[in-house]
Amino acid sequence: MARWQPDARGRLEAAALELFHKRGFEQTTVTDIAARAGLDKRTFYRLFGDKREALFSGGKLLEEVLIKAVAETDAAPFETVVAAFRRVADEIFTDRLDLARVRQSVIDSSPELQERELRKMGSLAAAVSAALRARGVGETAATLATESGVTVFRVAFARWVAPGSDASLTDLIAEVAAELRAVTSPPEPHPDLSQS
Amino acid sequence: MARWQPDARGRLEAAALELFHKRGFEQTTVTDIAARAGLDKRTFYRLFGDKREALFSGGKLLEEVLIKAVAETDAAPFETVVAAFRRVADEIFTDRLDLARVRQSVIDSSPELQERELRKMGSLAAAVSAALRARGVGETAATLATESGVTVFRVAFARWVAPGSDASLTDLIAEVAAELRAVTSPPEPHPDLSQS
Repeated sequence: MARWQPDARGRLEAAALELFHKRGFEQTTVTDIAARAGLDKRTFYRLFGDKREALFSGGKLLEEVLIKAVAETDAAPFETVVAAFRRVADEIFTDRLDLARVRQSVIDSSPELQERELRKMGSLAAAVSAALRARGVGETAATLATESGVTVFRVAFARWVAPGSDASLTDLIAEVAAELRAVTSPPEPHPDLSQS
Repeated sequence: MARWQPDARGRLEAAALELFHKRGFEQTTVTDIAARAGLDKRTFYRLFGDKREALFSGGKLLEEVLIKAVAETDAAPFETVVAAFRRVADEIFTDRLDLARVRQSVIDSSPELQERELRKMGSLAAAVSAALRARGVGETAATLATESGVTVFRVAFARWVAPGSDASLTDLIAEVAAELRAVTSPPEPHPDLSQS
């Protein structure tokens, strides 16, 4: 019988990341992960739905910090979402670049993990959008501000974990947000968009 | 032995959509789909990797039209992507609202289909971004213009298939693009984004 283990979740997550990285995601079983953490398989399944989930439980904290930041920020919708992601960068990702790089390389190695990542990002976006609507932002504006903010975060994050990067994620988010504004700002002279 | 069948692909796709809609995605087997189309299971698997794929083969044409439009449009990156999606709306979706509504209701009914849809959108975005880069657009601008354009298309598409809508998809894309520009344009007065 497995007894309650202090921080079983944290140990299993660390073991999963380490084994996925060293042996490969496909080659690692839940039994391997549990053994590496000094726990058993049943304990793993009490905490995680499947093998993939051990890489994604940070998403819960990320969502909480984002939602709280959206509720507390008094700015236009897109600015609010960008500020919320910068808060996440400060509170969650500072000093975690090495970890983020390892995790990213594992995700990049598996289409299954990439699908899960996309789905997680989708539910994160739904939560942010709902938090904006709760502040009285209209549905379309909330969706567009959120999706644009998520795009900014994804591009900034990719730049942050790229080899050789040394800017902080917080700064990169501000930089990419400015680039997105420049890219989407109206062009002059205005071309006819109805045909090429 | 299955002989070659004229438009086996189209018949299988129509049968799949009809059965997924009437009986449910989970409850429909490849055998059911093939039988409904008057074909056999082996013919299905020669044309589609799995049951889900029968809903997604339109993605190939969509990608071709998009890429061609991007290559032919001489405008700023975001305008180019928006114009390309408007061309897709004109060339592919005109007069197909009923079909699009049925397909969307099937996708909304299954997390598995939603994952596949997200992944397809991801590879569509990668192709559009590559087409922009081929025109000399920088990597970040290409990604941001593409992701913003995909967001516009998704929001416009959701509005188009929503009950009671009667605007054309082409017009909705232009409308949502203008809304995205408004949402991401710099706010005045400029708040401090570093803290809430």
